[in-house]
This record gives sequence, C-alpha cells and structure tokens, in this order.
Amino acid sequence: MSVNAQEVKNLRDRSGCGMMECKQALVEANGDQEKAFEILRKKGAAKAQKKASRDAKEGSIVSYIHPGSKLGVLLELNCETDFVANTDDFKDLGSDICMHIAATSPISIRVEDVSSSVIEKEKEIYTDQAQKSGKPENIIEKMVEGRLNKFYQENVLLEQNFVKDPSKTITDLITEKVSVLGENIVINIFSRFQVGEK
Amino acid sequence: MSVNAQEVKNLRDRSGCGMMECKQALVEANGDQEKAFEILRKKGAAKAQKKASRDAKEGSIVSYIHPGSKLGVLLELNCETDFVANTDDFKDLGSDICMHIAATSPISIRVEDVSSSVIEKEKEIYTDQAQKSGKPENIIEKMVEGRLNKFYQENVLLEQNFVKDPSKTITDLITEKVSVLGENIVINIFSRFQVGEK
Repeated sequence: MSVNAQEVKNLRDRSGCGMMECKQALVEANGDQEKAFEILRKKGAAKAQKKASRDAKEGSIVSYIHPGSKLGVLLELNCETDFVANTDDFKDLGSDICMHIAATSPISIRVEDVSSSVIEKEKEIYTDQAQKSGKPENIIEKMVEGRLNKFYQENVLLEQNFVKDPSKTITDLITEKVSVLGENIVINIFSRFQVGEK
Repeated sequence: MSVNAQEVKNLRDRSGCGMMECKQALVEANGDQEKAFEILRKKGAAKAQKKASRDAKEGSIVSYIHPGSKLGVLLELNCETDFVANTDDFKDLGSDICMHIAATSPISIRVEDVSSSVIEKEKEIYTDQAQKSGKPENIIEKMVEGRLNKFYQENVLLEQNFVKDPSKTITDLITEKVSVLGENIVINIFSRFQVGEK
C-alpha cells in the first residue's frame, strides 16, 4: 500500500499532524482519509486539529546569534494573540527553534516547500543506488520512497528531530505547546546566515 | 547630458562611490569615465577605491530585535579579517545598519538589485504623472529620471540617508569606516521580518 503526497498533505492540513504520522495512518487505513483521521484522533495526535485551522497572525520575531557572531538565525513564530506571544512558553519555543535552525540548517519549513528540482535530484540518486541492488521494481520504488522520507527527516524543519531532545520532532514540539497554550502556533519564515556562505 | 545606468555602475564599481556621486561626476565629465573618476578622486570620494576590489570574506552576523519583538533584522556584514570584525568600530557599524534597516525597510542593498519589474512600474507611474504637465518629451524624460533617483534614495539601502545622521548616506557611513579600519566592508545580505507582514 503506497500513498501519494497529496493524500498525505490533505490529512496533514486537516489533522495538523506530522508527515510520517499521517503517512502511517493512511497506510493503516488503506488510503481512506476518514479512517486515517479517525486513527490519528484515537492516538490523540489530532487534538490540535481545530486550532490548526485558526488564524495565527500575532507572534514574535526572534533571533539567535551563535557565540563568535559567524552564524545567526532570524525567525517569525506566529500565534493567535499577543497575550500568548508574551508567555514564557512561547518565548522558550521561539528560542529553541532558532537554536535548532542554527544547528541543523534546514532547507525549508515544510515538505511541501522543498523545490521539485531538489526532490527530483534526490530521487535520481536514490533510484540509481537502489537499482544497483538488483531488486525488483516495486521494491526499488519503496527503497527510494524510504530514502526520500529520510531526506525530509534530516533536512525539513518540521520533520527534523529536535536537537535538544531527539525523541521528538519540531512538529511534536510545536504540538505540545499548542496543547499547553491553547492557540495555533505556526513557523512563518526564517533566515539563517553564516559568514562566507552566501 | 544624460548618462545611462551601465556607465554609472562601471564608475561605481571602480570608485566605490555612491550612485548620485558617480552620476554627477559623469555629467560633469560629459560621460567620460576617466575624467569622471578623476573628479571623484579630486573630491577625495574615491579614496576607498583600491579597497573595494579586495575580497571581503570575513565579518559578522548581526541582529536587531525592536522592543516588543514584532520587528527584527538579520544582517551579514563582511570585512577582510577577523581582527577587524572584532573591533568596536565594525560592531557599531553592524548594529547601526541593522537598526537603520529596521526603521526604513529598504527593498534591496544596491540599485542594481532592484528588480526590473519594480523599475518599470515606477517609471510608468512617473511618466504618466510627468505627461500631465504638458512639458516637452526631453523634459519629461528628465523628470522621470529625477523621480526614479529619488525612489532609489528612499528605498535602496546604500543610497538611503542614514536615519541617525541624515547628512550622510549608508554608502558614506561605510566609506568612513573603510577609511578608519583600512579594509573593504560590504553588506552581503539582510532579512527584515515584521509580524503579520509576510
């Protein structure tokens, strides 16, 4: 059972859950969106679902300059009210994400933001490697898919494991705070500059 | 006597001087590059000329978060050695430019970086306005050119008047520091985020 990116995206939009979680749920539900959403709800993962559809237009601009001033990050983290933006929980989340970005240098915020040229290039490399295994075509497809997911987990901010606690992803970290603060929280945009890099 | 953008750019690259200064020098020199460069040298403005061609690959990442955390700037300011990057003069320049960017929200660093679609749109508006004056075509051309220069002075970082001392442009401010520190200094890249803007 393989699911396509659009189906995963639809479930993500609806549930506010991470890519891998949605994918697993869809596989488990044989591609049935309703059933997959039910699975996520039962797991308690979709609890932030209602909030994810609400507008997040308040928030903060946060920065992190690494000691030595050769590396810096600027981040816009959004929530729904100025009240939440001023809580310590929200501020901690902002500086945690900034520091995480400094450490891992993600290529985008969401999987959907990765440019198709990057995806094509990665797929080409993985397909080439997988074909050398001599395995049948359907297995190769799965191998490539697996490698691509790994690529996302390593390079896409929301899919990455949080550097300060690798047992959770950045999506998990945000979902936790959404539960605590009761507002939708969205990473809107970030910049990461390193001296001599651009 | 009108000079084209490429001639101005050539003189800028060579002299390290501001756009308006180069333009005036070219007009004064009837478009002769050598003569215009001589004029700038005589004015002492081209003293940073030699330095501007040297590599600036060291430097610092600097940030400024405006009180209230709704607005922030991240900047890469380059120089030639780590020694200069660690001087107070260089650090002051970095934070001055950051704060300036926060206040004025420039659309680009250099005139050459302004997208041609923006220039075309501005020209169209100015031409439209100028034509209503009923003046002859060559006067209208000059009016449009004048307005476009004003647009650059208001919106392009290196042409803007420094907010803390409007008697000098950002280019002037940098040129002063180049003289003091004896190294080429270049604004490489900046980001400016404001909550709810993007």
